[in-house]
Amino acid sequence: MSFSRGDNTLKISAKLLKIAPFAVVLLRGGAEKNRYNTDLDELPFRQESYFFWAFGVQESDFFGAIDVNSGKSCLFPPVLDPSYAIWDGKINDESFFKNKYEVDEVRFQTKNAIRDYLEELQIKKVLLLKAENTDSGNFLEAPTFAGNESFDVDVSTLYPIMAELRVFKTDKELEGNEIRQQNCSVAHRATMKAVRAGMYEYQMESVFRRICYYHGGCRHLASTCIVASGRNSSVLHYGHANAPNDKRIEDGDMCLFDMGPEYNCYAADITNSFPANGKFTEKQKMVYNAVLEANRAVFKAAKPGVRWTDMHLLSEKVILTHLQKAGLLTGDNDEMVNARLGAVFMPHGLGHLVGLDVHDCGGYLGDALPRSQLPGLKSLRTTRTLKERMVITIEPGCYFIDTLLDAAFNDPKLAKFMVKAEIDKYRGQGGVRIEDDVVIWEKGNENLSDVPRSTEEVEHFMALEEFNDSTILKSIRDYLNKH
Amino acid sequence: MSFSRGDNTLKISAKLLKIAPFAVVLLRGGAEKNRYNTDLDELPFRQESYFFWAFGVQESDFFGAIDVNSGKSCLFPPVLDPSYAIWDGKINDESFFKNKYEVDEVRFQTKNAIRDYLEELQIKKVLLLKAENTDSGNFLEAPTFAGNESFDVDVSTLYPIMAELRVFKTDKELEGNEIRQQNCSVAHRATMKAVRAGMYEYQMESVFRRICYYHGGCRHLASTCIVASGRNSSVLHYGHANAPNDKRIEDGDMCLFDMGPEYNCYAADITNSFPANGKFTEKQKMVYNAVLEANRAVFKAAKPGVRWTDMHLLSEKVILTHLQKAGLLTGDNDEMVNARLGAVFMPHGLGHLVGLDVHDCGGYLGDALPRSQLPGLKSLRTTRTLKERMVITIEPGCYFIDTLLDAAFNDPKLAKFMVKAEIDKYRGQGGVRIEDDVVIWEKGNENLSDVPRSTEEVEHFMALEEFNDSTILKSIRDYLNKH
Repeated sequence: MSFSRGDNTLKISAKLLKIAPFAVVLLRGGAEKNRYNTDLDELPFRQESYFFWAFGVQESDFFGAIDVNSGKSCLFPPVLDPSYAIWDGKINDESFFKNKYEVDEVRFQTKNAIRDYLEELQIKKVLLLKAENTDSGNFLEAPTFAGNESFDVDVSTLYPIMAELRVFKTDKELEGNEIRQQNCSVAHRATMKAVRAGMYEYQMESVFRRICYYHGGCRHLASTCIVASGRNSSVLHYGHANAPNDKRIEDGDMCLFDMGPEYNCYAADITNSFPANGKFTEKQKMVYNAVLEANRAVFKAAKPGVRWTDMHLLSEKVILTHLQKAGLLTGDNDEMVNARLGAVFMPHGLGHLVGLDVHDCGGYLGDALPRSQLPGLKSLRTTRTLKERMVITIEPGCYFIDTLLDAAFNDPKLAKFMVKAEIDKYRGQGGVRIEDDVVIWEKGNENLSDVPRSTEEVEHFMALEEFNDSTILKSIRDYLNKH
Repeated sequence: MSFSRGDNTLKISAKLLKIAPFAVVLLRGGAEKNRYNTDLDELPFRQESYFFWAFGVQESDFFGAIDVNSGKSCLFPPVLDPSYAIWDGKINDESFFKNKYEVDEVRFQTKNAIRDYLEELQIKKVLLLKAENTDSGNFLEAPTFAGNESFDVDVSTLYPIMAELRVFKTDKELEGNEIRQQNCSVAHRATMKAVRAGMYEYQMESVFRRICYYHGGCRHLASTCIVASGRNSSVLHYGHANAPNDKRIEDGDMCLFDMGPEYNCYAADITNSFPANGKFTEKQKMVYNAVLEANRAVFKAAKPGVRWTDMHLLSEKVILTHLQKAGLLTGDNDEMVNARLGAVFMPHGLGHLVGLDVHDCGGYLGDALPRSQLPGLKSLRTTRTLKERMVITIEPGCYFIDTLLDAAFNDPKLAKFMVKAEIDKYRGQGGVRIEDDVVIWEKGNENLSDVPRSTEEVEHFMALEEFNDSTILKSIRDYLNKH
C-alpha cells in the first residue's frame, strides 16, 4: 500500500509502513512573521520546504496529517477572523482547500481539531518532523498541538525518511526545474548585456530580479544575490547586508554573479563570471579557463556511483594543473592536492544538492562519509555517492584571497608549491566561479543552465548578440512551446 | 548636558537625565535570521528601527550603549570568526566602526565586554528597551547580556521616551525623506505608464521595484506591495502570500497600487489609483473624486493642534457627501457619520505616522486618546493631536466590499441611509485609495508625494506624457541638483 497526492508529495513508503504501520504523520507549515515588533510582513510569506514538499500548500499557518495505514491525508487550515475578508480577501471553505490541494479531508484548526482527528483514527503514535539542517546545524523543531500529551510522539523516524525522499527529484519536480532554470539563465544573460563600467553592482541585481519576476513570475529569490565585481569577486558570500552589492563596476573588473530565483518554492542557482567590459585579459582568461575546464571535467565524470568528494578533488586537480601551466605553481600535482593546496584557491565545496532549498537537505544522509576536517573538503555540503535524479550544482571556483594566500606563504607545506612573484600578479583581481545546475542520469547528465560559457561565447554574446525584452520574451516562449 | 551623535541619534534629553541621571542606555541591534532551519538569509538583514535610529548601524548583531551622565556612546560589534574574511569580506577593527558611526568608543562583544564596560563606569542602573508596537501589540523584548543579573535593570523608562523622540523628524531625517519620496513617486509614475490590459499585477510590482532599486538604490521595500486591479482593489491589504498580486489586469479595471521603498531604513508610502486603460468611467470618476476631495480637505485642515481623529471624521464626511450627491446615499450627513456609515466605505484609518517603520511608532503616546471601539475609528493608528515635524500619511479610501455592504444592509441603523439599487451598481469594481506622505508644518503642510492626482492629470499623464528610463533619470537628477 502506498499513498501519494501526486509527484511532489510524501510517499507512504514501504519503509514508513514497516516502521510505523499504525501511526499518523503530522506536519506543521510555516507561520507568518513580522519585521521585529511591527505589524508588517518580514517579506511575503514563503512556505516551509518540508511542508510544501508534502502538501504543496502556499498559505501560512497550516497543519497537515497523513494516516500511514490508510494513506489518507487531511489538511488543517487556520481559522481566520471574519475581518480577514475586509483586509486580506476571501475566506475559503473546506471544499476550496480539498480541491486545491487534492487531499482526502479538510478540517479547520479549531482548538481540538488535531486531537479529535487522531482520536477518531484510534491511533496512538504520531510521527513529527524534527529536521536537522546539516549545513547550518539548525533544527526545524517538532510542532506541538493541543492535546499532544495524550499521544506517543516520535520525533526521530520521519526526518531521515523525508529528507532522503527530497533528494531524488520526480519527473514533475524536474519539469518545474527546467522552466525555472530557463528563467534564471535568461535573467543572467540579460544581466551580462546590461553591465557597463560606471554602473553599480546593485543595478545588476535589479536587472536580474526584474527579468525573473516580470517575465518569469518569480517573486522570491532562492538566495541573496551575490553581485560582485573586481576584488569583491573573491568574497565568496558577497552581497549580504554588510557588503550590499554597492561597489561601482570599473572597466577591467571581472564580474562574478551568483544568483537564482525560486518558482513554486523550487530554487535555481547559476553563477556567471565575465569581464565587465566584455573582453578577457590574458590573466582573466587563464583563471576562467582553469575553472571552466574543472566544471566540464566534473560534468563528464559525475556519473551515478561516483562519490562527490572525488569530484571535488578532481576539480582541484584541474585548477591546480592550469595554475601550474601558467607558472603560478611548481611541483607534483597529486602532492599539491594531498597538501590541500586546492583549498587555498577554492576554499568552498564543489557544489550542493538543489531543490526546495537552494542548499537542499540530505547531503549527509545515505552513504555520506562524515564531514571532513580538512580545508576545502570540510566545506562540502555533501559527500554522498551520486545517483540518478539528484540535482546538484557543479560550481568550481578559483580566487585570490589575501588572507588565504598570506597563510599559505607562511606554511612551508604549501609555500613550496607556490611561485610568489607570479601569484602576486593576480592579487586584487578577485575570482571566478562557474556554476551549473545538473541532473544526474545514467545516460549522461543534463545541464539545466543555458548561458554563454567559453571565453569566445562570452565575448561574442556581450559584443554582438541582440538581447532585449523582445528577445527575452521570444526565448521564454520558444522554450515553453518546445516543452 | 545633552548628547547626540547627529540628527538621527538618541538625544540624552533633559527628561532622561532627570529620570535616570546615573544610568546607561543599552540597546541591542537586530540579528541575522535564516529561512527556517536552512543556512540561507531570510532576506538581506535589515536593522531594527530603534537601534538604527539611535546609532545608524547597518550591520547585524551589535549592542550599543550611551552613558546618560556623560553622554558618551559605545558600540559593541560582534566578534567575527576569522573565516568571515573568506566568506563575507574584510573584518573591520575598532577604529573603522568608531569613524563610521562617530561614537566615543568601540569594544568588541567578548564574553564580558558589556559587564566590564558598565562596571568601569560604576553604574548600577541599566535602561533597556522593551518597546510595544501599538498596531501589532507585539513587543520588542528587552535584551539580555552576560552579567545582567548584577545590575539594576529598568525596562520601562526608555520606551516612551525613545518612541516619542522618533515621532518628530529632524531636518536630516526630512532631507532623506524627500529623495526617497521622489524615488517612490517616480517609480509610481513608471508603473502607471507600464500598465496594459493583459499584463499581470505582479509585473507592475516588478516595474515598481526595478525603478526603486535600479535608479534609487532602494534594496528593501517598506512594506509588501499592494498591486490590486479590479475587484482586488477592495481588499485592503492585498498582495500578501495568499493573494500574491497574480491577477490578470483587464480593460476597464481600476488599479490601486499601494507601494513604497525604504532608503537608509526610512520608509516611503504612496497609493495611486487609476484606470488600467487610462480613461475613467463615470462611476470610477465619481468614487475617485470623492476620495481625492477627502484627501485634499484633510491636507488643508491638518494643522498643528488638530486631532487626527477629527481628520478621519472629516474625510468620511467628504466621501459620504459625494456618495450622496451621486445618489448612493440619502439622509443627513452628520447622522450618517455618527451612525458610523463612513466605516462601511472606508473601514481603515485615515493614515499613520511614517518613519523608520512605515507604520511608525508613537501613535498612541503623547496626548493620544485611547483606541476607539467604533468601526473605522478603531483602525486608527494614531489619535494624537498633530504637531510640527510629524510625518503622516493622508490616505482616505472608498471601497465596495461585499461583506461590509451586506452587513450594513442588514443593519437598520445603516440601511436607512443606503440606496441599494444604486450601491449595487458599484459592487465588484473594487475601490480607490489616494495616499500622500505629508510633513505637518505651522506654515502649511508639505506634500512629499509627486504624482498625477486630478482625473485630468491622470488621464493626460497616461495618454500623452513621455516617461521612460531617460526621463526617469533626468527627473531624479533634476531633483538632486535642486536640493
